[in-house]
Amino acid sequence: MEKKCSILQIVGFQNSGKTTLIEKLIQSANQSGLQVATIKHHGHGGVPAFELNHKDSVKHLNAGAIVSSVEGDGVLQLRTNMMNWDLKKTIQLYQFFSTDLIFIEGYKRESYPKVVLLKDESDLSLLDTLTNIKCVVSHVELSKERLKDYRVFDINDEENYLDFCLSENEG
Amino acid sequence: MEKKCSILQIVGFQNSGKTTLIEKLIQSANQSGLQVATIKHHGHGGVPAFELNHKDSVKHLNAGAIVSSVEGDGVLQLRTNMMNWDLKKTIQLYQFFSTDLIFIEGYKRESYPKVVLLKDESDLSLLDTLTNIKCVVSHVELSKERLKDYRVFDINDEENYLDFCLSENEG
Repeated sequence: MEKKCSILQIVGFQNSGKTTLIEKLIQSANQSGLQVATIKHHGHGGVPAFELNHKDSVKHLNAGAIVSSVEGDGVLQLRTNMMNWDLKKTIQLYQFFSTDLIFIEGYKRESYPKVVLLKDESDLSLLDTLTNIKCVVSHVELSKERLKDYRVFDINDEENYLDFCLSENEG
Repeated sequence: MEKKCSILQIVGFQNSGKTTLIEKLIQSANQSGLQVATIKHHGHGGVPAFELNHKDSVKHLNAGAIVSSVEGDGVLQLRTNMMNWDLKKTIQLYQFFSTDLIFIEGYKRESYPKVVLLKDESDLSLLDTLTNIKCVVSHVELSKERLKDYRVFDINDEENYLDFCLSENEG
């Protein structure tokens, strides 16, 4: 069920107008109702500087590409503004990488198992807004009554909470 | 044939130690032979500043994650240092986005159809190193004899070469 995707390389020495041509091709393709992705090779060796990546990716995305990346020396940097991008799409995209684990920072409203970090008593309010709390890691000793429903670790009890976090996850 | 992938969220207010905990979780998972990806939500509204993305992605990758991304306001920025990353992997990854076209800047040694940009006579040597040349776009008038095997456009003949590039591609 793969969609047919045409591939076209744009090559030339430095300052031959590659980026300008790609911008025009993107615009022209968009006018024909075609969606475009771009890939740039960072040909000067080494990992691409993130400023360069930003500059080129933004140019391609501004011209109308929905995804743009720069690859150099085995590091890929990608940027996409595909409509309605959300966490679900990122997780789907990550299937490509076949990792064993995905750690997500933030997205409080999502329903995946959570480790909740509390730095003081006033952070306890956070617990009321979350679902699927796996454990709590706290910087200070907190009221046992308030935390009775949760598995609680002290921030210094590193070995135990790392083990717990890694052994208890469900996808 | 999807590999089982566990997902764990790390939540907490600012300065509660989320990034530090994620770094420790990555290191601990790696020690158990597990591969890790990370996703960070840019929670302050708007498109994530690329400096921030860089800083966080590099921290996660340095800790041992093979892919890391920041998403905010519908824009995803991803960075991966997965072993032996190459153009083929990028193209495979791009299947996720289901675009009609992929424009590739550079990668001269690859064998996809190519538009070759020439800015002067001395650039002609480039032609000898390339395969699958679709057309040539030149900034100057060049020897017809040297270019007799190619479809050649003048850089100012924009409408024609854009049409040609977009109509003749094969995936």
